[in-house]
Amino acid sequence: MLRILMAQMNYIVGDIAGNVSKMVDIVNFHGRDVDLILFSELAATGYYPYDFINRAGFMEAQELQLSALQGATRGSRAAVVVGHIDRNPFAGKPYFNSLSVYENGMRTFTYHKQLLCNYDIFNEPRHFEPGSSPGLFMLAGHRTGFLICEDAWNGNDEPLYKTDPVEQLEREKLDLIISLNASPSNVRKQARRYEVIGSVARRCGCPVVYVNQVGGYDDIVYDGASFVTGRDGAILYGLPAFREAIGVVELADCGKISHSPVAGKAPELLVSPPPMDDIELIYRQTILGIRDYIRKCGFSGAVVGSSGGIDSAVTLALAVEALGAENVSAITMPSRFSSEGSVNDSIDLCRNLGIRLYNDPIEDEFAPWLKNFESVYGKKPDSLTMENRQARIRGGKLMAFSNDNPGVLALSTGNKSEVCEGYCTLYGDMCGGLNVLGDIYKTQVYGIGLFHNRVRPDRSIPENIFIKEPSAELAAGQKDSDSLLPYDILDPALMLYIEHDLLSPEETAECRSKLAMTSSPPIERAIRLVDKAQFKRNQSAPIIRVQRRSFGSGWQIPVASRYVDSQFIQEILGRQF
Amino acid sequence: MLRILMAQMNYIVGDIAGNVSKMVDIVNFHGRDVDLILFSELAATGYYPYDFINRAGFMEAQELQLSALQGATRGSRAAVVVGHIDRNPFAGKPYFNSLSVYENGMRTFTYHKQLLCNYDIFNEPRHFEPGSSPGLFMLAGHRTGFLICEDAWNGNDEPLYKTDPVEQLEREKLDLIISLNASPSNVRKQARRYEVIGSVARRCGCPVVYVNQVGGYDDIVYDGASFVTGRDGAILYGLPAFREAIGVVELADCGKISHSPVAGKAPELLVSPPPMDDIELIYRQTILGIRDYIRKCGFSGAVVGSSGGIDSAVTLALAVEALGAENVSAITMPSRFSSEGSVNDSIDLCRNLGIRLYNDPIEDEFAPWLKNFESVYGKKPDSLTMENRQARIRGGKLMAFSNDNPGVLALSTGNKSEVCEGYCTLYGDMCGGLNVLGDIYKTQVYGIGLFHNRVRPDRSIPENIFIKEPSAELAAGQKDSDSLLPYDILDPALMLYIEHDLLSPEETAECRSKLAMTSSPPIERAIRLVDKAQFKRNQSAPIIRVQRRSFGSGWQIPVASRYVDSQFIQEILGRQF
Repeated sequence: MLRILMAQMNYIVGDIAGNVSKMVDIVNFHGRDVDLILFSELAATGYYPYDFINRAGFMEAQELQLSALQGATRGSRAAVVVGHIDRNPFAGKPYFNSLSVYENGMRTFTYHKQLLCNYDIFNEPRHFEPGSSPGLFMLAGHRTGFLICEDAWNGNDEPLYKTDPVEQLEREKLDLIISLNASPSNVRKQARRYEVIGSVARRCGCPVVYVNQVGGYDDIVYDGASFVTGRDGAILYGLPAFREAIGVVELADCGKISHSPVAGKAPELLVSPPPMDDIELIYRQTILGIRDYIRKCGFSGAVVGSSGGIDSAVTLALAVEALGAENVSAITMPSRFSSEGSVNDSIDLCRNLGIRLYNDPIEDEFAPWLKNFESVYGKKPDSLTMENRQARIRGGKLMAFSNDNPGVLALSTGNKSEVCEGYCTLYGDMCGGLNVLGDIYKTQVYGIGLFHNRVRPDRSIPENIFIKEPSAELAAGQKDSDSLLPYDILDPALMLYIEHDLLSPEETAECRSKLAMTSSPPIERAIRLVDKAQFKRNQSAPIIRVQRRSFGSGWQIPVASRYVDSQFIQEILGRQF
Repeated sequence: MLRILMAQMNYIVGDIAGNVSKMVDIVNFHGRDVDLILFSELAATGYYPYDFINRAGFMEAQELQLSALQGATRGSRAAVVVGHIDRNPFAGKPYFNSLSVYENGMRTFTYHKQLLCNYDIFNEPRHFEPGSSPGLFMLAGHRTGFLICEDAWNGNDEPLYKTDPVEQLEREKLDLIISLNASPSNVRKQARRYEVIGSVARRCGCPVVYVNQVGGYDDIVYDGASFVTGRDGAILYGLPAFREAIGVVELADCGKISHSPVAGKAPELLVSPPPMDDIELIYRQTILGIRDYIRKCGFSGAVVGSSGGIDSAVTLALAVEALGAENVSAITMPSRFSSEGSVNDSIDLCRNLGIRLYNDPIEDEFAPWLKNFESVYGKKPDSLTMENRQARIRGGKLMAFSNDNPGVLALSTGNKSEVCEGYCTLYGDMCGGLNVLGDIYKTQVYGIGLFHNRVRPDRSIPENIFIKEPSAELAAGQKDSDSLLPYDILDPALMLYIEHDLLSPEETAECRSKLAMTSSPPIERAIRLVDKAQFKRNQSAPIIRVQRRSFGSGWQIPVASRYVDSQFIQEILGRQF
């Protein structure tokens, strides 16, 4: 029998001493109670350290810290499996993405990740050379296979890599596969993991223990949600998503897996946890994304411009969940075009959320700008110029509050539909250190708000904010629908354009059917705006990533370029123009 | 004898029809006069099309256009060698970075690039599978070797790749090597190319014809500067840098290379062109970077905030060179803290440059903001808050001018020393579609200004702008030196930190000697600011890249992280703290 502890921890990228110290604490506390302690991929450095890897002292710092972890296993019952960077002394990139086994003070095995991701947000071969040996080791008397994250994902019809590390393990009559991961969270990801890892278990005929890190940095959030499959690929147990957790499973000699109490604590493992639905996942992930970005950047609070609309209301609600009401402030900045409702709705919202609201109108700065513009430039500004100037006065006020209150970060509130279309003002409403909703389509933002009201009735978003028509209130009588397609048409069109190759056939069909009653030219116009707005997104704050494909490093297109692909647009829409 | 035409063209990324049409024109015009026409790496798509590659119609569009080019060789004396994307039908990434030979209407040879760059600004394996066959083909009766860019660069002591394509060619008794490139320009790059390609020629014992693209997009500028080596690696001829050019060389049966007139034109080839010195290179490269970014984005003019300081003066001078005086405007935006000199120096500057200057003071917006801030937030704003608010009022005015004048892009003026230290205001002086000086250290900015005055005495920057002490003029009596190390200390420290591994031993020694009289703590503080300011650079406009290592995709570090490396800082400074 093998008692295996899964450590699903929240690391800080580059804080090697802090990360390893967390691990040493776990070894010291649980080392007598279990046979094996598993830490996730690149746990030592936090995933992903990017070009820090190339700095002279980075490897030395890691080696120093890892020797402390190795030392902590001396005399301990538990062996440790930990993800870290290793050196490559031969030709190729100078490092490997590796895992090592420490047993009784010694390093007894090292495996180098063979499949290095280079797509979407990933670029591991920038720093690492792929390994070339299978992950096989006799660990505590058990025939054990090792995989690091992507190693498990090449078993499909259109393989991205020439090697399949799972195939290397298939005929080895393994007792167990250990999979260390740093797998970012997005909608539908957990279900995919269950499929892929379940298939690994079936192909190799043994249980798989899948350990993932948890926590956010910049635009990326890891959910944890570590799990265990049986030999048949069935999901037996899982750790909770979006928080640190420790779970213990027992592998019996017959190959049966069962879960077990953690020393001195009730077990944290859940039996057969189903994947979260999209809205709940986005809600919980965004809260953790805000909390970790603020905390890991050394901030403690946030300020949000409150327009009285749904975007800023949801942003504020999420910020309060992440940081506590006492650490969140709102500013309403009405203009000459603002409805009375904007301010009143902000007041109601902030009362419900228990946060401070400041009222800082923009007219006293807008009026002199308008007057001087005419005298300096000899003409009245165009309507768009006036709209943008108002948005930028607001951005400036928000940033002034942030500058004047150290530790308070401004959050921007543009949703993905706006960010796609460029329906947002650079240096205006795009001001802020983190964009909270930039990967959430407008129609989903309402869903997030409703979900929030259901789980947090004590801190609810007022109903009036849900029912009013979306407007930037930058010109008289302005409505979003003057400039954009209705969101229930726009969002499925955008989703098809951005994620066409990642959607299920059902999702594709659903999106297309929502477009069925709309003629092609306005849809095509809306889709073409996505590439045109790239220059704005390149200057955006990090956008918390929640979808299968998101802007940021997952969407790399040049600005000073010329490429329009009608054929592609027709194909994804499933129609001829 | 073989007559070879080198076509150094400026392509637009994604404009496949436009790019190929340029090539067809050259084949039609010169095809009777030469035996071989060489176009650069990925000439069909422009280098580099990023994720456009993955779009459904991209390959079809390219294949359609390439068949026109192939057709243009039918009945022509000239064979064509052209860089393009090819499909990979087997496991791995679905495309290759390839070149093909078209002869008399047929595709007779295709070679796939074997070494795919994944460092600095490059990430080719995101889209491409490496080729695995040597580039060998009997072309027009000549034993010819083929290399695509990086293929030539693995012949050193610490090879980044396990394969060396040059080694594959070494024993093949070649008559000629053809190297197609998309090699970005930066300081000291041309001298490195001469070394590396010269060594390829010596190893293989044959001449090398090196063809590069020219032109800018986003942050990257290609210089062209294509050249030809003899068998001994000596540089015999070169095409001019920073403009489109065509040159013809003749390869005699004895292996001797000589240059030759282009049909109907004087030859453009220069005999043994020496690499440009750093300042001239930066000057010319930045001008092309501005011109191509503006033009390829569909703009025609620029506006710059003119402070009367050296940064905005040099930015304006470069913009005038790039776009013509009639397409450039300046706005001076004095504050209550501005010296009288600021406005007068701007007036003198704009008179010399022949451009329109608007005077748009910020006081009428700043005063009401200040008054309202106290009444809304119950305190006077901190000094930093006030400074930033002024910078942001200026940014807003600049953007209003740009919004109100379609086709006019705002240029930002922060130099690399400021961008390193975060001595710049997000949404303030960082506003703009392109940052012109962000990769040029402050001490170099003066050099660029002096160089400009030497080559353009008719459009000179007034002397007073060179001699005044640098100041942001956002507070009374403020000077840069209140916040920053003196630039002649700061710049070598920053250069060591950012480019330590790319500098020559002489450069390293020179930088260290400039720091010799300064104690370590202020230097270390200055260096630590570089990583801390990353969040600002992540929201910057593209910065025209001119150095060996630049911010942007060449400098990837996470923000919500914790890594401080004193050992590294000590090593690069060559001293103990």
